[in-house]
Amino acid sequence: MSTMTLAGTMRAQMEALVRERQDAICRAIEHLEGPAGARFRQDEWSRPGGGGGTTRVLQQGAVFEKAGVNVSAVHGLLSPEAARGAAGPDYLSGGDPAGHPADGPVPFFAASLSLVLHPHNPMAPTAHANYRYFELGDGAAPEAWWFGGGADLTPAYLFEEDAAHFHRAHKAACDRYDATLYPRLKRACDEYFFLPHRGERRGVGGIFFDRLTGDDREGLFALVRDCADAFVPAYLPVVAARKDAPFTAAQRRWQGLRRGRYVEFNLVYDRGTLFGFKTGGRAESILMSLPLVARWEYDHQPGPGSPEALLVEVLRTPREWA
Amino acid sequence: MSTMTLAGTMRAQMEALVRERQDAICRAIEHLEGPAGARFRQDEWSRPGGGGGTTRVLQQGAVFEKAGVNVSAVHGLLSPEAARGAAGPDYLSGGDPAGHPADGPVPFFAASLSLVLHPHNPMAPTAHANYRYFELGDGAAPEAWWFGGGADLTPAYLFEEDAAHFHRAHKAACDRYDATLYPRLKRACDEYFFLPHRGERRGVGGIFFDRLTGDDREGLFALVRDCADAFVPAYLPVVAARKDAPFTAAQRRWQGLRRGRYVEFNLVYDRGTLFGFKTGGRAESILMSLPLVARWEYDHQPGPGSPEALLVEVLRTPREWA
Repeated sequence: MSTMTLAGTMRAQMEALVRERQDAICRAIEHLEGPAGARFRQDEWSRPGGGGGTTRVLQQGAVFEKAGVNVSAVHGLLSPEAARGAAGPDYLSGGDPAGHPADGPVPFFAASLSLVLHPHNPMAPTAHANYRYFELGDGAAPEAWWFGGGADLTPAYLFEEDAAHFHRAHKAACDRYDATLYPRLKRACDEYFFLPHRGERRGVGGIFFDRLTGDDREGLFALVRDCADAFVPAYLPVVAARKDAPFTAAQRRWQGLRRGRYVEFNLVYDRGTLFGFKTGGRAESILMSLPLVARWEYDHQPGPGSPEALLVEVLRTPREWA
Repeated sequence: MSTMTLAGTMRAQMEALVRERQDAICRAIEHLEGPAGARFRQDEWSRPGGGGGTTRVLQQGAVFEKAGVNVSAVHGLLSPEAARGAAGPDYLSGGDPAGHPADGPVPFFAASLSLVLHPHNPMAPTAHANYRYFELGDGAAPEAWWFGGGADLTPAYLFEEDAAHFHRAHKAACDRYDATLYPRLKRACDEYFFLPHRGERRGVGGIFFDRLTGDDREGLFALVRDCADAFVPAYLPVVAARKDAPFTAAQRRWQGLRRGRYVEFNLVYDRGTLFGFKTGGRAESILMSLPLVARWEYDHQPGPGSPEALLVEVLRTPREWA
């Protein structure tokens, strides 16, 4: 645990959470890989300005073509511009109630769990999850803090029961906090994972939230913990059920085309990826989200009524799943 | 030719140039493909606001895995913000000498030739070229105009003689205009095709220029024409010499990784791609530049002293080639 993480603070709680969940998720993935499958490779990295992370990647396994599970807990000083960028334009706009000069650097802390799993079998969907906590100011009494995160599913072929299972598991986690939450986070997910140049969403969605703050920090932490805990039961049974399904070379090519769209979203629109590049993050950890192989065929159009066309229809017009 | 292209104007000259060169380049590529090779598929598209283009793509040929050669000639009205974005922040900043109200729309015209060629054989380099003309204001007496463009080479394996041949052919075209030009355009190319998150250039460069304007519009047009004419002799002989070279599966995987970097540059940094997305361009025409297949292996490091490491060294520290 980093020296900037004071015991008992939310910083310490969140750093412990992301590290424990990284272990648990990696164990579950290696279990599904089986005794002859691949194991995670681990890289520890440190950030020159403070903190660091642990990147774990498994490649060309029995079940997963590529799986990356990252944690990071970083801290340091942000320029006032970067702090405004992080907290929104109003932050520091009229001077600073907490005593930092309006043009001086602002202390920050961020802890994050981020994972992307790409199975081999085109019938088994890709999944992504990310849970993070961000603080500006002093760790004992931060000036601003928020949680962000979510989880979403990206199939190459639509199995309605898989999408429904993934959504229901996340809805149950949200409902424990507030029964009105899931519909909002589901809609936010459909809005965020949208490729305007394609008129398509990246996948069949899930939940998404950013800048979640308020009076009840412990309650929101419990929500984030419950959502993170929902991921393994929401996703791995789907992969277990599809990993040995028969498929053709043409279906594998279609999976490659869908992975091309995944790359387009992550490189053109994903805030985390672009923020990581801008702030000099570790490129290999940021880009562990990309699939092993992606494909671009000019103007590929699935046949009318085909399973491929059905998927695209759902990406163009999101459905309710839970 | 579009109805907005007045005979004898630079608009008309440039539109004729890009259309003729598209034909000539596609003929040369089909010739190299041979009688059993692939042929270009052609799509005409029109822009709702005015003008349109012709996209030609050849896929999975005998020599080229994917080859795209686009032309477009578009016109219409830009918002003052978009005109300032195109012309630079000073444009319209103090009112408008040409009589457009400073907050009114500005007529524009743009003609462009854009091509990306990805051969199968990992010993044969990918190449890109783009030549374009942009005008703001009235076609007979434009308020602002400029040329942009260039050509660059992206090998997966470095053959020094190929890089030297490509650069020398473009240097010869530039020298006809001004002997001081090539070194500047070569340096600009190394600067533009840079991936900060990788610390690498996309390839071994070539020439690059943007917003080229001045008193001698006919002279700059001749430069652009000569550069465009340099492309086929600069590139196709290199492909002809490498297309049947023996290669291994590992070399093909390395080519896939390099194509991953190509995708990263085009989707994260390339101004034309991002401008195209923002202005609602035709996604399939913009993305015809992407390779058929690209690959991302986590933290792949070429062995010290290997041909793969030699390429990366040249991408990190550009050389003089001509």
